[in-house]
Amino acid sequence: MWNEHTADGKTYLERVFEFSNFVEAWGFMSKVAILAEKQNHHPEWSNVYNKVTIRLSTHDAGDVVTDYDRALAAAIDEL
Amino acid sequence: MWNEHTADGKTYLERVFEFSNFVEAWGFMSKVAILAEKQNHHPEWSNVYNKVTIRLSTHDAGDVVTDYDRALAAAIDEL
Amino acid sequence: MWNEHTADGKTYLERVFEFSNFVEAWGFMSKVAILAEKQNHHPEWSNVYNKVTIRLSTHDAGDVVTDYDRALAAAIDEL
Amino acid sequence: MWNEHTADGKTYLERVFEFSNFVEAWGFMSKVAILAEKQNHHPEWSNVYNKVTIRLSTHDAGDVVTDYDRALAAAIDEL
Repeated sequence: MWNEHTADGKTYLERVFEFSNFVEAWGFMSKVAILAEKQNHHPEWSNVYNKVTIRLSTHDAGDVVTDYDRALAAAIDEL
Repeated sequence: MWNEHTADGKTYLERVFEFSNFVEAWGFMSKVAILAEKQNHHPEWSNVYNKVTIRLSTHDAGDVVTDYDRALAAAIDEL
Repeated sequence: MWNEHTADGKTYLERVFEFSNFVEAWGFMSKVAILAEKQNHHPEWSNVYNKVTIRLSTHDAGDVVTDYDRALAAAIDEL
Repeated sequence: MWNEHTADGKTYLERVFEFSNFVEAWGFMSKVAILAEKQNHHPEWSNVYNKVTIRLSTHDAGDVVTDYDRALAAAIDEL
């Protein structure tokens, strides 16, 4: 589901989520937003209509994937 | 699902939705908010933790249930 | 701003917020939702169009006003 | 505020919004989401913490900037 990528010296977890339309995608994002702030760990994410792309990386650790990223990814997967 | 109630001279459709927790309830509300504004018809609604109560009535028609309420109820049920 | 009320054996802080329209009210609610989950303390709140009513009480303490309520009220006021 | 860019054969309006933190950025996005769905015109947008980047282009017109984009940009600016 989550793939690890490296680009421009940054490593991150990435997953793309697809929904039936924008409203459903937005309902999902609204839940992710709460989880992110609750964990004090925020994604780099984008949306176009029914598609949401989430990238997780830990800037303070030098833009690598840490347990903070894995914890947020796990919480998102539980939604 | 939706029940018609009359109280204080107002008639409205009411439905109570329950979720597993606040985050799930909020994801639902975030979708309903978009539908409501899109239809230019806004609910009287409340939330406590995992529970969302939605009441639909048409103020401009004298606080009775109209097709505007039935259309929004149907859109909510399709989520 | 926040008034303390007692009704049906429950004491709570209540404040009513008014905005120019539903979209502005919803933007506010979206911020409050995150704060509430972050503090693990959820309001009893309702919305009709441009109006948001928030009630804060601590159920686990016997439906009285505690520091949990005051902390969430303060965070909301800072928005 | 909004700049017109061309890249990969696509032309779009772009604007970057900065807020004091994630919660404020999210409140803004929650309002934009409603406007977008109401206008049946959805942005390509991304967020990292307090920063929101919005790109507007009309896919059905061949990925160019049209009045649909200008209308959504104007509605966002009025927030």
